[in-house]
Amino acid sequence: MGATPPLSPLAPADFPELPIIDGVTFAIAEAGVKYQDRPDVMLAKLAKGTAIAGAFTRSATRSAAVLDCQEKIGGNCDEGAAILVNSGNANAFTGRNGTTSVQTLTQATAKATGVPQARVFTSSTGVIGEPLPHDRITAQLDELSGALAADGISAAARAIMTTDTFPKGSATTVTIDGQHVKIAGIAKGSGMIAPDMATMLVYIFTDAAVDQPVLQSMVSALNRKTFNCITVDSDTSTSDTLLVAATGASGIRITESSVGFMEGLRQVMLDLAHQVVRDGEGATKFVEISVTGAASDAEARTHALSIANSPLVKTAIAGEDANWGRVVMAIGKSGARADRDQLSIRFGDILVASEGWVNPDYSEDEAAAYMKNQELEIHVDLGLGGGTAVVWTCDLTHGYIQINADYRS
Amino acid sequence: MGATPPLSPLAPADFPELPIIDGVTFAIAEAGVKYQDRPDVMLAKLAKGTAIAGAFTRSATRSAAVLDCQEKIGGNCDEGAAILVNSGNANAFTGRNGTTSVQTLTQATAKATGVPQARVFTSSTGVIGEPLPHDRITAQLDELSGALAADGISAAARAIMTTDTFPKGSATTVTIDGQHVKIAGIAKGSGMIAPDMATMLVYIFTDAAVDQPVLQSMVSALNRKTFNCITVDSDTSTSDTLLVAATGASGIRITESSVGFMEGLRQVMLDLAHQVVRDGEGATKFVEISVTGAASDAEARTHALSIANSPLVKTAIAGEDANWGRVVMAIGKSGARADRDQLSIRFGDILVASEGWVNPDYSEDEAAAYMKNQELEIHVDLGLGGGTAVVWTCDLTHGYIQINADYRS
Repeated sequence: MGATPPLSPLAPADFPELPIIDGVTFAIAEAGVKYQDRPDVMLAKLAKGTAIAGAFTRSATRSAAVLDCQEKIGGNCDEGAAILVNSGNANAFTGRNGTTSVQTLTQATAKATGVPQARVFTSSTGVIGEPLPHDRITAQLDELSGALAADGISAAARAIMTTDTFPKGSATTVTIDGQHVKIAGIAKGSGMIAPDMATMLVYIFTDAAVDQPVLQSMVSALNRKTFNCITVDSDTSTSDTLLVAATGASGIRITESSVGFMEGLRQVMLDLAHQVVRDGEGATKFVEISVTGAASDAEARTHALSIANSPLVKTAIAGEDANWGRVVMAIGKSGARADRDQLSIRFGDILVASEGWVNPDYSEDEAAAYMKNQELEIHVDLGLGGGTAVVWTCDLTHGYIQINADYRS
Repeated sequence: MGATPPLSPLAPADFPELPIIDGVTFAIAEAGVKYQDRPDVMLAKLAKGTAIAGAFTRSATRSAAVLDCQEKIGGNCDEGAAILVNSGNANAFTGRNGTTSVQTLTQATAKATGVPQARVFTSSTGVIGEPLPHDRITAQLDELSGALAADGISAAARAIMTTDTFPKGSATTVTIDGQHVKIAGIAKGSGMIAPDMATMLVYIFTDAAVDQPVLQSMVSALNRKTFNCITVDSDTSTSDTLLVAATGASGIRITESSVGFMEGLRQVMLDLAHQVVRDGEGATKFVEISVTGAASDAEARTHALSIANSPLVKTAIAGEDANWGRVVMAIGKSGARADRDQLSIRFGDILVASEGWVNPDYSEDEAAAYMKNQELEIHVDLGLGGGTAVVWTCDLTHGYIQINADYRS
């Protein structure tokens, strides 16, 4: 696997304090799936009545675990549920063995936890193309089940890491009619060393009571504005999974019109999404790219992602070069509508270009000074319509090449 | 501009011998547009009766010169034509100045050469966002016009270079009914240092007599299988231009059914396209990616380009890592149809994976030995239908980051 990469310079100062969410308990184990002497399995058990919503990779070659989760989402919540995650092996592109492993794991977890198999969700992350040694995990299930405790979420955040350089957690409390609803989530993603892939796994828990269809509709909508708006290198894992579990233990019912709850959930999702970008391989800059004035929101997104994924834009950012020409290039190639002579581009507050040409007051020195910041904003206005989008990315550095080319499998 | 990058390890051993094409003459000049002490302008004059076909960048922010060429393609060929190209400044994203420069250059070239302005084609390549100092070029036009000579094509190939590490030329002779038709072409592209872009410029000349619509239809069809099948980093210039000029000086008439001529033209176009990839920034490997068994040719192309543009695939190739998992990932994310359990993947002749899993006879040592080659082939069969595609790319290395991030504008 090569050496562990150093802590990302964009890592948060501390892992946040995550509150206990009533109705969910956690346990971790060292199963030795691939890594030795570190936790590599986490089990979460959800109380009866827990609604679970999800979002998954759209890859056409998605893993057996993802396909199994997708089938189970929306099922009957009266019986509780369980989430089992292992790191070290992704059980992806393992042919028929992949399905067998998922069946074995969900069956054994059902037996150990007393939850029906139809309510056991699994994820696997790590090397691909190697059969998952699922027996090493099933051997731990009785012990895991016995160790389930309410305060285990921080340890769980560490157990699901692969080549992440820091564990990722986020939480908030929402006040609804004077009562408190808690939301806490963990994520892993974006460190990758051959032959791993940047699988992003996210698990969010709340003690709110939410009907599954309402929760699913919130999660799907928020996912489009959070996890689906980040990109490290345009590559997509076969295993990306987001699960949001609402235990209902607070007794506070959330409806479609609960703006406060939705905003709290959005904050946690966005925070975790940003943390994944901050742990992007080799990242030294965190970049927000916003597009306004597009012909539609969809076209704004196409332009924003074209800029965010352009190797030339990303290397210019790495080089602290205010290279607005490459931004123009990325807009031109995106396939969405643009009029060269209506474009304006800002780096932070600095108006770099407008009406298809460099701003006459543009100061290269001022722009160069701005580019030295660790957090950057690139804003493009297309001058065509009302479409807007915001996406987040990181720069493309020698560190990326080092992680992905220099270490061999 | 930073230091000149070293010669690409994938460069051909020699610049080829390019034949004289009757009906076209060349001249070069040192105009000092940006570079000093090297030729930076080339003029080609085409005899009366020359048909010119073209293909251009599809960028929505294409340059004024490209827009002007696109308008002129297909015009009356009775009056001859001229092609004027400068390196050092791309005249792109220069607002209204861009159009003024093109008008000035085409008018002055018309005056100096006696060709109507409507038949003067220009290209500019180099830095963007800076007004083109077109007076430096117009000051050279009388001298250029006086120096036009039949044997100047090799010098022209050098004059149009920007950060290319080698000049690019290709030629062939086609025998039609016992008579010979010559085709010779030059290209520049793919070296780029901030704030340049990887503009690809290609000029091909033949003494065949071809009606413009026939030539255009051949060029458009062949372009789809040659220049539109190469990618260095998925980024697209605002100035990409291909012009093919048929002078008719051989007296040999080519029709739609001239398979031999079309094959000769295809060879020259493909050779020049491959040379552009071989001069890709930081390239150390030349990679052919072929896809068969897709639901359609278009979907095969989508898969092939997804593999060719994936930073994870390209860094694995740089690291000489037979990382077929990343190929599966790139297929999965492409958006075109794929069935994980029908996929097979070959690296060269080595069957790596089939039926959705690693080939039981796969030898990691054998694959690792293969990956040490400078020329690699990755083949994917999707097992779905008859769609096929072939594209060419290079690896993604520290050299790419160095060229595009380490040197600042």
